[in-house]
Parts: sequence; C-alpha cells; structure tokens
Amino acid sequence: MAPTAGRESWLDGTESSGTTPLETPTATPLATPISARSVRWEKDVEDAAAGALQRPLLYKRGTNTTSQMAIVGANTCPIESLDYEIVENDVYNQDWRSRGKLQIFQYQVLKWVLALLVGVVVGLVGFFSNIAVENIAGFKLLLTGDLMLQNRYLAAFELYIGCNAVLAAAAAALCAYVAPAAAGSGIPEVKAYLNGIDAHSILAPSTLLVKILGSVLGVSAGFVLGKEGPMVHTGSCVASLLAQGGSRKYGLTWNWIRYFKNDLDRRDLITCGAAAGVAAAFRAPVGGVLFALEEVTSWWRSALLWRTFSTTAVATMVLHALITYCRGGHCGLFGKGGLIMFDLSSRQATYTATDLAAVVLLAVLGGLLGALFNFLVDRVLRAYSIVNEKGACYKIVLTVTISVITSCCTFGLPWLTACTPCPPELASKCPTIGRSGNFKNFQCPPGQYNALASLFFNTNDDAIRNLFSAGYDREFGVSTLLTFFTTVYTLGLLTYGVAVPSGLFIPVILSGASFGRLAGTLLGSVSGLDPGLFALLGAAAFLGGTMRMTVSVCVILLELTNDLLLLPLIMLVLLIAKTVADCFNKGVYEQIVRMKGLPYLEVHAEPCTRSLVAGDVVSGPLVTFSSVERVGTVVHTLRSTGHNGFPVIEDPPFAPAPELCGLVLRSHLLVLLQGRIFTSDRVKTGAAEVFRRLAPFDFAKAGSGKGIKVDDLDLTEEEMDMYMDLHPITNRSPYTVVENMSLAKAAVLFRGLGLRHMCVLPRTQGRPPVVGILTRHDFMPQYIRGLYPNVLPR
Amino acid sequence: MAPTAGRESWLDGTESSGTTPLETPTATPLATPISARSVRWEKDVEDAAAGALQRPLLYKRGTNTTSQMAIVGANTCPIESLDYEIVENDVYNQDWRSRGKLQIFQYQVLKWVLALLVGVVVGLVGFFSNIAVENIAGFKLLLTGDLMLQNRYLAAFELYIGCNAVLAAAAAALCAYVAPAAAGSGIPEVKAYLNGIDAHSILAPSTLLVKILGSVLGVSAGFVLGKEGPMVHTGSCVASLLAQGGSRKYGLTWNWIRYFKNDLDRRDLITCGAAAGVAAAFRAPVGGVLFALEEVTSWWRSALLWRTFSTTAVATMVLHALITYCRGGHCGLFGKGGLIMFDLSSRQATYTATDLAAVVLLAVLGGLLGALFNFLVDRVLRAYSIVNEKGACYKIVLTVTISVITSCCTFGLPWLTACTPCPPELASKCPTIGRSGNFKNFQCPPGQYNALASLFFNTNDDAIRNLFSAGYDREFGVSTLLTFFTTVYTLGLLTYGVAVPSGLFIPVILSGASFGRLAGTLLGSVSGLDPGLFALLGAAAFLGGTMRMTVSVCVILLELTNDLLLLPLIMLVLLIAKTVADCFNKGVYEQIVRMKGLPYLEVHAEPCTRSLVAGDVVSGPLVTFSSVERVGTVVHTLRSTGHNGFPVIEDPPFAPAPELCGLVLRSHLLVLLQGRIFTSDRVKTGAAEVFRRLAPFDFAKAGSGKGIKVDDLDLTEEEMDMYMDLHPITNRSPYTVVENMSLAKAAVLFRGLGLRHMCVLPRTQGRPPVVGILTRHDFMPQYIRGLYPNVLPR
Repeated sequence: MAPTAGRESWLDGTESSGTTPLETPTATPLATPISARSVRWEKDVEDAAAGALQRPLLYKRGTNTTSQMAIVGANTCPIESLDYEIVENDVYNQDWRSRGKLQIFQYQVLKWVLALLVGVVVGLVGFFSNIAVENIAGFKLLLTGDLMLQNRYLAAFELYIGCNAVLAAAAAALCAYVAPAAAGSGIPEVKAYLNGIDAHSILAPSTLLVKILGSVLGVSAGFVLGKEGPMVHTGSCVASLLAQGGSRKYGLTWNWIRYFKNDLDRRDLITCGAAAGVAAAFRAPVGGVLFALEEVTSWWRSALLWRTFSTTAVATMVLHALITYCRGGHCGLFGKGGLIMFDLSSRQATYTATDLAAVVLLAVLGGLLGALFNFLVDRVLRAYSIVNEKGACYKIVLTVTISVITSCCTFGLPWLTACTPCPPELASKCPTIGRSGNFKNFQCPPGQYNALASLFFNTNDDAIRNLFSAGYDREFGVSTLLTFFTTVYTLGLLTYGVAVPSGLFIPVILSGASFGRLAGTLLGSVSGLDPGLFALLGAAAFLGGTMRMTVSVCVILLELTNDLLLLPLIMLVLLIAKTVADCFNKGVYEQIVRMKGLPYLEVHAEPCTRSLVAGDVVSGPLVTFSSVERVGTVVHTLRSTGHNGFPVIEDPPFAPAPELCGLVLRSHLLVLLQGRIFTSDRVKTGAAEVFRRLAPFDFAKAGSGKGIKVDDLDLTEEEMDMYMDLHPITNRSPYTVVENMSLAKAAVLFRGLGLRHMCVLPRTQGRPPVVGILTRHDFMPQYIRGLYPNVLPR
Repeated sequence: MAPTAGRESWLDGTESSGTTPLETPTATPLATPISARSVRWEKDVEDAAAGALQRPLLYKRGTNTTSQMAIVGANTCPIESLDYEIVENDVYNQDWRSRGKLQIFQYQVLKWVLALLVGVVVGLVGFFSNIAVENIAGFKLLLTGDLMLQNRYLAAFELYIGCNAVLAAAAAALCAYVAPAAAGSGIPEVKAYLNGIDAHSILAPSTLLVKILGSVLGVSAGFVLGKEGPMVHTGSCVASLLAQGGSRKYGLTWNWIRYFKNDLDRRDLITCGAAAGVAAAFRAPVGGVLFALEEVTSWWRSALLWRTFSTTAVATMVLHALITYCRGGHCGLFGKGGLIMFDLSSRQATYTATDLAAVVLLAVLGGLLGALFNFLVDRVLRAYSIVNEKGACYKIVLTVTISVITSCCTFGLPWLTACTPCPPELASKCPTIGRSGNFKNFQCPPGQYNALASLFFNTNDDAIRNLFSAGYDREFGVSTLLTFFTTVYTLGLLTYGVAVPSGLFIPVILSGASFGRLAGTLLGSVSGLDPGLFALLGAAAFLGGTMRMTVSVCVILLELTNDLLLLPLIMLVLLIAKTVADCFNKGVYEQIVRMKGLPYLEVHAEPCTRSLVAGDVVSGPLVTFSSVERVGTVVHTLRSTGHNGFPVIEDPPFAPAPELCGLVLRSHLLVLLQGRIFTSDRVKTGAAEVFRRLAPFDFAKAGSGKGIKVDDLDLTEEEMDMYMDLHPITNRSPYTVVENMSLAKAAVLFRGLGLRHMCVLPRTQGRPPVVGILTRHDFMPQYIRGLYPNVLPR
C-alpha cells in the first residue's frame, strides 16, 4: 500500500500523459482553423459557458477528500484510458489488406502460444510461492516448536515475534521503496484495468517481482492474509509482460508481432492471466475461468472462454505435476497437498428441514458479518491511508506494528485456554508434534492438546484444513472457536491495509470457517450436520457476503473439496448471503475500486442520466485539426493540451464545406511528426508517402511509458511552418452520437464497445461538423453531479 | 421436423409481420414530405440505383435453394427481429419518471420470482419426462424380455418393433400436425432467438406441449436420440410463457408488470430457461449456466450469471428432491438415479506418458469423426427436407421407416454375436434379468450373456452407463464395440432429421463412449487406463468434435461423473478434439442455424466488410414521416410496406430546417391510430394528450402474434384527413452511424448493442437529415455478397 496525497489523481491524468486535466480542455483555443464550443441541447449558451467554467470547482466540491483517496501511489501515477476501438485509418487498412494467410495463421498460433505460456509461467510462480511459504513458515514454526518442547517459552516467543517482524519489515520495505503498486490484493486494480483504466506501473515488471516476493514474505510472516489475491495480480502482470508483443530493443520486430501491440489483444491475454492466477492459487481451473468472468472482466467474448480455460488448465496441470514430484520429498518441508487442497469427501448428502433452517440462519448471519467486514475494511483503509501517506518509513512501521500484534495474538491467546486431554480413540494422532496436524501440543503436558494453538500456531492453510476436518466433533470447543473467530476477523480487517501484498480470500475463509464451525457446534443439538460441513458453509457465506461472487466461489469451493454433493447447500448459502449483504453495501473489490477513485464504468448507467443528453456534458472549447494541418499548430496543441484524440475536419479546398473527416490519436501524430512527413504546401500526400518512410509497426501501440514524447521532438522553425497530411492516420470511422442522444444511451454505447473517444455531432445543420468529444470521465457520476447537482442527487 | 418450401423465409418477413421483403423497401415512394434515397459513398447515384434494383435478384442467386432451406415450417412462419434498444420516447420518459420505489422493488422481486419459477417448472418437466420415459420404455423392454425368456423370439420381435413404430408414429403425428416447430433439437432455434431472431411459434405453448410429449414418445420409441436438447427448448418455452408479463384477457394488468413486456427482460428469462433445461437434463447446475453462456446466448451480463445460476440450482434441487422421493419405489419402474447420473468415482489419478499419447490419439480421432458427423448430418438433413416438404404424411412415414430400421438393428444385431460365458467372479450379477444391468441374458442360455444386447437392448442412458462402467475390462469385446459404434453413429445421423423432438447429446455421447471404449480395449496393451475411462474420454472427444463446446461439456461431464480428478484429461481431450474439428467445419448447431437460413449475427463481422461503408448497403427509397403527419399517409404506409421502424423528420414549421427527430415503431403508430389521437390541424398535441387517453401499458410489446394489425383499424375518410403528432412516440435517441462508417464497425455496434434499426446520417451538409436505415439483413454476408460479388468472395 502506498497511500499518497493524490486525491484528484484521475482528474490529473485521465486521458493524457500530459498535464491538462480534461480531455475537452479548459485551455485557451488554439490556432486551429475549425474549433467549436459545444452547445448544450435546449439550454442557452450562457448557461453552458457558466457550467464549463464552474465545472472544476464543482467537481472538486462534489468529490470530497476521503471519497477520492488514491491509495496506490496515485500522485505519481497518471491514469490512462485504454482504447478497444479499431483505428480504421489508411495505415491500418493498407496493413490489413497486405496481411498474408501466413501472417494471420502466425497471429492465431501466437495468440494461443502466449495464452498457454501464461498458464505455464503462472503455474510455476504458483508452485514457487507455495513451496517458499511452506519452507519459510514451516522452518519458523519448527524452530519455535523445538524451543516450546524444551519449555523455553520466552525464547520461543521472542524467536516467533522476531521472525515475523523481520519478514514483515522486508515485505513492507520492498513494497514501500520498490513498487508501491504491489501492496494490497491487486484484484481491484486488475478489475479496473480490464474495465479500461491503465494505472501506471500496476502491471510493471517491478510490481510483478515485488508482488511475488512480498506475498511469500507476508504469508510467511504469519499475517492473516492470503496469497490468492496477489496470485491474480501476478498472473495479470505475467500476461501483460508477455503481451508487450515484440521489442525493437531486442530485435523482436517480426511483422506479424505488431498485430499484438494493441489494447484489445493485451486485454484478452490479461484476462487469461487473471484466471490462471486463481486457478493456480486454488488449483481450480473451472473456478478460475468463472472468477475472471464474474468478478474481474468487464467485457467477455465466447472465444475468450475457450482460451482462458486452456490457460487455467495448463496452469493447474503444471502445478499438479510439480506437486506430484514434490510428494517424493524433493521440496524440503513441502510434502503435502495435491490437486485438491482440502479432501473432504464422504459427507452425507441428505439433510432434514431443521438442517436447512440452520444453514439458512448461518447464511443470513454470514451475509450480515460480510457486509460489516466490507464497511470496516473501508474505514480501516481510510485510517491507514493517513499514516501511509506520510512516507515509506511510516508504512514499514505500521506493517511491523500489525505484525507484532498478530504475533502476540497467535502466540499469546492459546495460553488462555486450558489444555484438553486427548480422546483415547485418537491416541495415535493426538497430540501431534511437528509441522501440521489437528492436535497441537503447544505448552500442554503429554497426552493433552491445546485446541486454540491447533488453529493459531499454524499456517493459514492448515488452520482452514483443521476447521474443515470432519469426524471428531468435539475437537474445538465453543470458547476456542469464538476466540479464534473474533481474533481472525479483527486481524483480517487490520492487516488488509498494510504495505504488503495481501489477499482477502484467506482471512474471509478463516473467519467464515471458524464462524460456521462455531454455529455448527452451537446448533449441534438441532442439526445433524457435521461441524466440518458447517465450517465449509460458513466460509461460503462469508465469501458471498464480502466478495458477492456466487458461481465462481461455488465452483472454487467444489474444486477445493471435490464433492459435488455439497453443491445445493453451498449455492443456497451463497445466494442468501449475497442477497442479505447487497442490502447494505457493495462488494469489497468494487468498494476499493471506488475508494481509489479509479474511473470505473459501471454496466448500468445511473438512471438519472436519462434526463441529460450527450451535449449536456461535453465542454468547450473543442480542439480540432484540419485534415492538412500546419506542423507548428499540431506541435503546439500537443504541448499545451493533454488530449489524446482530436477530431479532424475536412475543409476547403479538400471539401466544399467543412465536414468530419475522422479522429486522430496523439500517438499517431507523434509518429508522423518524428518521421517528418511534411510538405511545404497545403496538399494531400496520401498513405503511399507515409508507407515509403514508415512501417505499419511504427504505429503500433508502445508498452506503457514507452511511446514517443512530444518533448522528444526536435523540429526546426522551418519545419514548424510546413504542413502535414493527417488523412493517412485519421480514423475514418469513429463512433459518433448526435448531441441530443440521451446520456444514458450514449453511456451504453461507450461502455458496450469499450471506447476511449466518442464524437458528438450537431443535430442541426449549418454548425461545425463536430461539437464535442465524450470520454470516460464525462460519464462519471461525480462529474455529472458536479455539473448538475439537482439532476443527479447523491 | 417440418421441412417446407419456405426457402426465402427470412427474406419474406425479416422485419415485418407484413409482406414486403426488405426493411428499406423497394415499394414506390409515398406521399411523405421528406424522403431520401441513400447515396452510396464514393459511388455515383446511378450505380446505387442499379444495385438497389438488382438486389433481390442477386440475393436469390447468391443463396441457392439448398443453402437457404428452412426446415422448421418456415413458409408459414414470418421471422421477426427482436429489439433490445430502449425506446426513449416521451411515453417511456414520463412512465419512467413516474415509477415509484415500490414499483421498482416489485419489478426486481418479480424478476427473481419468475427466474426461480422457471427453475421449478423446468425441474418438474425434467422429472416428468424422465419418469415417463423410464416407465414407457421399461414396460416395453420388460414385456419383450418376458417373451424372450419364454423363447418366443418372433413374438418378442413383433412386439418390440410394433411398440416402437406406434410410439414413433404418435410422436411424428404430433410434430407434423400440431407443432412443426417442435421437431429437432431446438437448440439452434433458441440460439437464434437469443441472437435476436424470433421465428414465429418457436416458443409457443403448442410447441412446448408437443416438445415434451414428443420427446417422451421419441425416446421411449428406442430411437438413437436424447431428451437433452429438447429440454433446452422446453426450458426456453416455459420461460417465454412466464415472461409474457401480464395479460389483459385475464385481468393481469398491474402497472408494474408492463415493465416486463419488452424483448430485453424476455431474453434474460429465456436465457435462464435454456440453462435450466440443461441443468435438469444432466442434473448439472454449473454445467447449465456454462452451456447457456458458451453455446446459446449472444449477449451476457454479469448480473445474469447469478440469476441463471439460481434458476439452474432450483431446477436441479427440485429434480433431486423428486428423485429422492422416487427412490422409495413410488414411481413405477423409475427407481434408479440420483443427482449424479453416472457415479464413476475411484478412478486412478495418475497416468504415464504412454497413457497421454493414447488419449491424444483418441482426441484427434474423436475430432475427425465429430467433424465428419457434422458434415454428414448436414447432408442427411438436406436429403430429408426434400421428403418432409411433401407433407405431414410423408413426415410420419419417414419417421416410422427410421423406427423400423432402428428396431431391426437393436433387436437383430445381437443375434449375430456369440454368447459369452459369465465370468465366475461375477456370478451374482451375471446374467442380469429384468430392466437394467450390464449382462443382458437375451437369447443366451443361463450362465451366459449377450454383450451386444447389453448395449442395444436397453435405454440409451443405461447403455451409456454400461459403456462407462469400470472394473471388469473384458466385458465388451472388440467386435461388439465396433458393431455398436458403427450402428449408433449411423443411426444417430439418420435419426436427427425425422419429425420428432430429438437431441444430439445422447447419440454423440453413445458413439463417443463406444468409440472410446473400443480404443481403450485396443490400446489396452500400451495404456494402463481403464476402458471405462476411455469411454468417458471418447464421449468428451466426440462432444468436442461435434458441438465445439469446451468448458460447458467439461463441467457437465464432471457433474455427471462426480470426479474432479478427471478434469485435466477431459480438458486435454476437449481442446484437441475441438481444434482438430474446427479445421474442417463449424459446430453442429451453428451449421443448422445457417442451414435454416436464420439471419444469425456473428460476433465477428466478415473481415471484407471493412472495405465497405454503411452507405454502401442501405437501399432506397427511404420512407420517413414528418413529426406531425397526416393520418392517411401513415395508414397507407403501414399497409403498403412491411417496415417496422420509420425515421421521423422534424420539418417546418416545427424546426427551421429539416432535422432528424428520431425513430418511430410500427407498433406504437398502431396504438396511436387505434386510440384516434388526431387533430384537424397540423399542430403538436404533446405527450399529455396521449396520456389522457392511453396508459403506458398500451405501448408495451405484445406477445408474439398478439399486437394490433393495420387491417384491424377502421378509420373514416374524415379521420384519414386529420393529423397525428408523432413526437410523443418518437424514440428521440436512436443509435446512428455516419454513412462513411465502415460496415464492419457499424456491424460491431449493431451486434454489440442488440439493435433492430440503426439510422444512417449523411456526412455532408445540405442533404436530408437521414439517408437510410440499417437492419439485421443488411449485415448478412449473403446479402452483401449479392450486392458486391467481388468484394466479398465466397
């Protein structure tokens, strides 16, 4: 976590790598021949002008400090929108027509090779982090356990707390100094990326490295956090790196690789990566696909289903093969596990009405506690961000503090419970000594076990396995479970905001399982269901209550437990818990996306936007280019605005009257400028001239932060007075709406097709051919609320 | 199946319930003040006119008789496009603003209630058809078996063949006379519906009834067909009936129910219904959701995932509860079964490289045979349609013929194999006498069994269970399996086109399982895998090869077998089989959709359409209305054209110059005409006048075939000379494209938002404000190919 004072972060750079806040700028009009102010439909111009001037003020007022807090180092990260529209300019058309069958085949094959490669790499990473955690945490627990056996309790405590603090500090230092974007779960950021918001460095190589190492250190440090969320982020980072699509630097510039250098193919691969992350974390290939579909992506195509599934399948198989190899004892302390994490088969498949009533009660309570968890997480994150904003050192101190609190709880609380004598029928298994097992000896005399230590003094995975375990009902008493539940719920809340990669799955499953087992133990007299089954259902209820996922959580739990007969009960619990929790607040990931101020486009436009039209939200003055434009004007515009797309107007002598030629992108203008394809007279040069000097590859989208910058250009005065023909790089088919299109319907179009720019056309004749441009931020409720406080009440 | 001579069916009625073939008509221009011919971009007008005139001819030429064959009674069924656009006219806006919180809550609750109700009903229907089939077929087999035991073989054969023929004839008669649309699988039609094509009577109550009864009769008749495909159709029909949303006739006209009377909510519910059908057929709730997502729907929203899942969960639970009840012996011959169809656990989870190689070989062969199956199904359907076109009697004769052939094969072929002595270790189970069991006695002496009869002389479900059964490897010999595979593969091909409701899942699974077991038996020396496992993988390979589904088939097979450890192998097989088969042809359902000539919109526009622009495909003359129009003109236009949407032009005195006001729908015009909201002068009356006389409910979309017809209107000469104000019913925000938008991108917009009409705007000024309308058929490759044979080669 790297909370910083960037509360207007996405305002500062939504559509640009530059400095001007808005796409439709408030900067002074330029020397462009045609430039039009938007006229708001059925409103007089004076009013519109006032609105445009007031906007930044109102906007700031509408978005108070806390609601716009950007937690992941946002003040240093400009946010850029992604563009899923095909830029149909002459370059693209000529390029597309020249594609041979071989190139198309290569492209198809490479798409698959990349997807499968993502699967392999994510599987390997998942294996590495599993093995590293098991070895580091296992070694730590073994050493402490040895000291405990020698009755050197203080030394054991010091060792335990020290190890944890050092591991936590290392993780926090990595996050604070190397890659602040690696803190937290990463799922909200990936969700935002797949919605079209590219927060700088969120998928960078440094983030990937820190995410993997930090996650291993964080989990080993005994925090109540998981490595599942970070695996999703890791998977996306891996996919993003592989999707860069060739590199000039390393000579990887085959012609056909350029087809990958676009946001659309990158998005597809990152979807595969996110799914593979879940698949590798839970060893659940189908669950991974459904997770990506239900929670992460904003757009989905049927073709993607198949590719995503292959990726998750490969990731799972790689992991499975390596774990099978490890079963031979080749991997240090890592010996257990398999494709199924918790093998809980042989449950009963029949249940009575009382059982069902108990399960419904559990689901309702799970939903309520889940909603409360979301509410509290929000508060904790806001409080932490004040600390974290102060600097890297503060982050580390906060992390170490939480680590110490966690260590004290996990080591200290078991002392409060009395030792339980081992049941005679389990003499062979109780008490267990060493790494895992249900019946931890801890400080107890031989023949007895400490129930609370069996849960606390363990890795989180083992604690969950113990909670899910069936058979011996009275293993954990009511007080044990109550203490554990309260502690884990609180620690889960306190841990999420610290500066280490931290997933929410494990804390939620832990709390849910302990709560479920508690409920099962309490309801033992009325319900005949196993407390282990209650623990599983409790976990489902909490997952439904916090994350609001249904199908994917259901399938993940099924894949974890390998028992399809549990399906009806799990579904029932998930549906009830989600419904109950939805009455109070949003899912935890959506909530974090909002809190970070990322301009996330919702599926449904706010209903009140039906009262507004597209023309109401575009603001002037609009910057346009003539189809053959003076170089100096272009350079000056690019320098003085942060806009990314400019309408191109065809005007005399190229057309009898001004008409819309299309839309040109900043990046393409820069390529043309750098290529110096200028003429001294105002004439069309055509695409042939461009192709003579530049390859289609030159126009492909560069990796983030790698494109040409306007300040890199070094043009002479003479060149500045020349003309450049924009026709070859103008997208001739931009999506357009008429100014009196209702804003809600314009939003459906914008969101549905994944656009970055949308031209607004005049309704009446005799006006400029384009009256404005709509971008992502024009659809944000905060923005509209600032403009029209009465139309869109909070 | 009801093939008829309707080969231009969708040409004849794509956009209308009237008679004119094209939305943009070839009829003579009307007395409408503003009417514009489309001008094709960068082409001269003469050429465009020629194109427009030639079109119908070219179109017919481009679509030869066979490729446009409409198999499901298409000559009597006009096809109508569905409209998922929100019609934002004054009526809607006023209506929407008047919605209270209570109404919105009622709407939300009802949406859920309907979805869950669909689940309950589909679960009940699934149970009914299971129990009916088991009892009818079981009784038939028991009677025949009794005669066999008495060595009265000829009588047994006569009884068997007679029962089958009678059942087949009954099913065929129902299909031929009552509801021709009920023949076949129904999945292609549901797929087309969810793509926006409403073929008349495809979801009608009569179709539902015949589908259920016909499916029971067909399966009981011993055909090689399944009840799974029909279950999907049944589920959709049930959902469609429930989604009608209130009825005036029965007084169900609460205000809030009208919000359901639109294509969008109906589409969502039908998606739920289709998923519930799969869930009930295979008792696979997750598989049902994925099936709907992967194969059936064209649009998907995250919100739908949850609702669909609830529906499938309810359907599965209802079925499960009833089957549990039946286990007590309350349901006649239906005693077996449970949530898991084939309980095949306890397979080995490890496999060697040789095993993998054998599996890959199986998958490749499965893919090849699957592609061959699709090719042959196409040929058989084309051949059958010639017979079926001749009339209902021919349909019945064809069905009975196939029934007799099937009976001869299933009864006759077992005589060709020698009896096998029962293995001594299975003395208790072999030979089995009665309904089910692996070791059918048939004509063999006691202590021996007929391997082929165990497969043939059984219901299809039992045959699959026998093929999947593990443990005793040498149960079925190579010759047995080879005979069975060849017969089933051929009969499956021959059966699909007959006039009974027939699913493709069972024939494909049967062929695949027998082929897989054959391969497993042959490869027994090199691979240590169980032949039952090979049978399962063979079924997966065939399903992947014919239906080209991956994730859903995988999950369905997992839910059927309840063994997640098989996942990696099943995935591998599916991916290979699909990839291999995709090299040859399309999936079987897509192929049938194409063959029926349904105007299905593909996700990807044909790449060559990038060379065309929107203006190239619109044809003139365009029929438009003035915003306040003479009643006579409107009535005459509605009578003489079949168009469904008309651009409305705001012209003097209501605007200084003609401008686009919006789009008006035929159905709304008819409501206004019937309400007689006319004025004697050409003035705006406004929405208030409309609301004084009509309720918003009057404008809701009527159930199919129920709306007002233009011929129902009875207007006097005086009324015909009055004026009507179209403003209140004009959709002010129609989606528009500029005429030089590339056709490919226009198609993305059209498909992405699920539109029915799209206005084409002029690029240059000084022309009419709208130059054409694009509808579904303008994006059909056949149509474009007819216009531009060189641009879009076959």
